[in-house]
Amino acid sequence: MQTETTADRTITWDEGGECLRFIEQTLLPERCEIIATTDVERLATAIRRLEVRGAPALGVAGAYGVALSARSHRHAPPGAFMDLVHRDAAMLQATRPTAVNLGWGIRRVLAALDREEAPGAAAERALEEARATEEEEVRLCHAIGEHGAALLPDSCTVLTHCNAGALACVEWGTALGVVRSAVQMGKEVKVISCETRPLHQGSRLTAFELARDGIDVETITDSTAAYLMRKKVIDAVFVGADRITRDVVFNKVGTYMHAVCACHHDIPFYVAAPYSTLDLQHSEADITVEERAREELAACGGRKLMPDGVRARNYAFDATPLGLVTAIITEQGARRL
Amino acid sequence: MQTETTADRTITWDEGGECLRFIEQTLLPERCEIIATTDVERLATAIRRLEVRGAPALGVAGAYGVALSARSHRHAPPGAFMDLVHRDAAMLQATRPTAVNLGWGIRRVLAALDREEAPGAAAERALEEARATEEEEVRLCHAIGEHGAALLPDSCTVLTHCNAGALACVEWGTALGVVRSAVQMGKEVKVISCETRPLHQGSRLTAFELARDGIDVETITDSTAAYLMRKKVIDAVFVGADRITRDVVFNKVGTYMHAVCACHHDIPFYVAAPYSTLDLQHSEADITVEERAREELAACGGRKLMPDGVRARNYAFDATPLGLVTAIITEQGARRL
Repeated sequence: MQTETTADRTITWDEGGECLRFIEQTLLPERCEIIATTDVERLATAIRRLEVRGAPALGVAGAYGVALSARSHRHAPPGAFMDLVHRDAAMLQATRPTAVNLGWGIRRVLAALDREEAPGAAAERALEEARATEEEEVRLCHAIGEHGAALLPDSCTVLTHCNAGALACVEWGTALGVVRSAVQMGKEVKVISCETRPLHQGSRLTAFELARDGIDVETITDSTAAYLMRKKVIDAVFVGADRITRDVVFNKVGTYMHAVCACHHDIPFYVAAPYSTLDLQHSEADITVEERAREELAACGGRKLMPDGVRARNYAFDATPLGLVTAIITEQGARRL
Repeated sequence: MQTETTADRTITWDEGGECLRFIEQTLLPERCEIIATTDVERLATAIRRLEVRGAPALGVAGAYGVALSARSHRHAPPGAFMDLVHRDAAMLQATRPTAVNLGWGIRRVLAALDREEAPGAAAERALEEARATEEEEVRLCHAIGEHGAALLPDSCTVLTHCNAGALACVEWGTALGVVRSAVQMGKEVKVISCETRPLHQGSRLTAFELARDGIDVETITDSTAAYLMRKKVIDAVFVGADRITRDVVFNKVGTYMHAVCACHHDIPFYVAAPYSTLDLQHSEADITVEERAREELAACGGRKLMPDGVRARNYAFDATPLGLVTAIITEQGARRL
């Protein structure tokens, strides 16, 4: 494992180094550190710790996770190989329960493996499939960006929550891909980024990547969004999604409140996500919403924010009924579900 | 100036020590430190730094500020005394622009002064008036508590935002006074306390004082509230107020979002505040909403949460139209404006 300090892509295969490289996002915006690894356990830790996060990036991480597993077991006896890879895949799948893309990426690479093939050849095929997943993710975000950008007026202010940007994908982003595509088309877009408690993906990551690219961005507390809607500062809301079932959009907690408030103010509320985020055979009741540790609310930096013994309810996601969503933007275009 | 570590009241006159004593709230929940002072400048700093905060407590602080000023100028020439006190009063008034109670407390004690009186006697009268303000504040909160508690079912979960509790008043509290009165009546009340970014008055102060009193309290991020409403966890919302004009309630930023979401879910939304918070000769457009430093969002506990150069819009308050308020609870009872 080695670290460096620049990256074009959030997560990518390093052909020369023969390893996976990803940005360790918990350190942003203080430092931009790149982790290079061939260890599937290290990747699982990264997913659990949110060093790699964001639904589309998790799809790619899942794909590479299976590829790393296959690679590390390529000298195993042919009879044991598939079981070893499936065991690692199950371990990866268990890291985070809500985003659909993680499992989708894992299953995609598993499906590319052939039980009859020699482990060495299978490992190569797994890596090819993971790299294809990465490249496809990039193409999809650009397509989402163009479809979404067409919906924005020539000059506007977009509210976003959490980070559905380059750092949540391979590059470009979904909700922020829409902003990037609009800026590329010559539109004047300002972004209001909700800081997104408790882990500050909005102020740490969204503000970081937009400022880096010279896009106008301002940060607010999550609870200021509704007031800015009331003050007519916001023209549209764009967020990403972790899973879209037949009745709701699961996304970072806070998304639902923005949707309710956008509806109250007649502001369009858009969800931008690759088609693979759709999970229409399930409904809200089928899905587990991840609850994370009390500690995320109880302290920040070295500061204690809550008395000992007081409980915290820390849902990582919430659910927004499709009726509150103006349109879902996938690589196939904008549609209302 | 001396410090101690226990207090029955958030702000009070210490007769033995002949000084004002208040809890330095920015240190909670790590330590509960009491500041004892006779210096009006020290009190002004405390108000600016939110060591003393909460609309009703600010009313009492304003009253004591004038009393401390009068006391410190009691040996001034009779001709200069009133000008010196008025100069300090203007300095106090400028510390925070939005809460109506601060100015109300200041004016109340100024009005009790008599231009004809000798400075020494006037200073005594100012202190008497400030102490009367403190005692009255306690009585009002208990009256508000009883009126509000009558509106709660025998077993319920109340959502609150920021701290409208003992720490925002002299003791008992407004919104949390309602909870305390309900518990005293034998009702089973659970409180969900929104942490209240950026200064965490909900997780630092509300959770602290309710846990101290053995009242069931759980903390959430501000943006989780709407999701709990959707999950039918919340029976009522109770918040305080910093100023109630003829069209809106000014209160901690986030209040408006809770009001919109409560309305969407048909959950009663109550504002609890002393009658002195009403400012019906003004409307929303007349009032300056305090904007506080970028730094409050950019860092926490030594941790950097935002890249350099990115702006933050940090409103301390927002405005909730009276149409979204089920009832305003004052010492006179519950009413709809």
